[in-house]
Amino acid sequence: MRLSELSERSGVSVYSIKFYLREGLLPPGERKSARLSEYGEHHLRRLRLIRAMLTVGGLTLTQARDVLAVSEDPAFGRPERIGAAQYMLPPHTRRPDDDEVARHEWDRTRSQLAEMLHGLDWRFDDSNPSLDALTEAVLTLRSLGYGDAEQLRGYAELVRRLAAAEYGGTIHPHTDLDKAMEGVIVYTLLAEPVLLALRRLAHEDTARRLHDGE
Amino acid sequence: MRLSELSERSGVSVYSIKFYLREGLLPPGERKSARLSEYGEHHLRRLRLIRAMLTVGGLTLTQARDVLAVSEDPAFGRPERIGAAQYMLPPHTRRPDDDEVARHEWDRTRSQLAEMLHGLDWRFDDSNPSLDALTEAVLTLRSLGYGDAEQLRGYAELVRRLAAAEYGGTIHPHTDLDKAMEGVIVYTLLAEPVLLALRRLAHEDTARRLHDGE
Repeated sequence: MRLSELSERSGVSVYSIKFYLREGLLPPGERKSARLSEYGEHHLRRLRLIRAMLTVGGLTLTQARDVLAVSEDPAFGRPERIGAAQYMLPPHTRRPDDDEVARHEWDRTRSQLAEMLHGLDWRFDDSNPSLDALTEAVLTLRSLGYGDAEQLRGYAELVRRLAAAEYGGTIHPHTDLDKAMEGVIVYTLLAEPVLLALRRLAHEDTARRLHDGE
Repeated sequence: MRLSELSERSGVSVYSIKFYLREGLLPPGERKSARLSEYGEHHLRRLRLIRAMLTVGGLTLTQARDVLAVSEDPAFGRPERIGAAQYMLPPHTRRPDDDEVARHEWDRTRSQLAEMLHGLDWRFDDSNPSLDALTEAVLTLRSLGYGDAEQLRGYAELVRRLAAAEYGGTIHPHTDLDKAMEGVIVYTLLAEPVLLALRRLAHEDTARRLHDGE
């Protein structure tokens, strides 16, 4: 297809497409003549991915380019390529760097959590930034007397089942990589509020059932 | 126990306790003499609940008072008393009020979602503000081509199991109401980041397993 059709089908303006081509985010089309290039379906998918990264994902142009570079680097396997997109997504949590006691507590909790999850045969790299987010959240929960290890373990098993069910379709090995990465970004971020809202509705359901003696 | 001991055991200053007494958030102690009142364990639990509402929950003093009023109103059953605390918690989503088309789409989606969940025998009042949050989140997801009804239904069933498991202990009918409400506030809000972080780690686990052909 021509540039104009690519623009129409993707909903991305010709101006933006030219910009992405110039910045190297979108690979060039097949050159037919001095003024005409031909674009394919993979350009469409890549455009959708770029838009997902920049709008839903809130990545900067440089971050988006870094993610795409990893996604095309043969040194990485498919999980790492998909992970590169996910690792970039907000929110990011920082280890406390001012207070030595807090830092020590942070490191100890982070290691314990990683150990607990790997003990349950969870496969992830310890550089996953969600391990930092988990550390911070668990420290807050514990400061109020909630979130002991036993409770957390049961919780983790349930969340794993949820994640496997929701993610399986999105990143199936037969899915085109650009499409899978778009799914990861859109789904990871936008399904979060769906999950939280459903959870609170389900809490009311649980409360009513317990009250009704079920 | 005396006021000083109540302060020590609750970690709330004498000044704040006197303020809560004056504002009617904390019921008075048993008067022993002109200058001495005796406080019990239920004062301790109520103080923890007040702190949870004001700090973790981010409620204003007026909101906290309203929640406590409902919690003591014999016209309401236990689920409604607990629900009053939950309904007040952020975030709150507003129905679009400027654009008639958007408003219509909102109402239609909200009704469909309520119908779907009630069809799965979920018990909740349609005034639950999380139904608004769900409506907004689903509309966003759908605008990008994700979140069809079938997928949502399967998702809802999984979240319900998660919610039942995590909530069962917190609000068991035998739990003291003030303690249950504290649990609802702390747990609803503070477990959210735990859930989201675990979910992302589980996504990496899923990706690696699919890649390994499991």
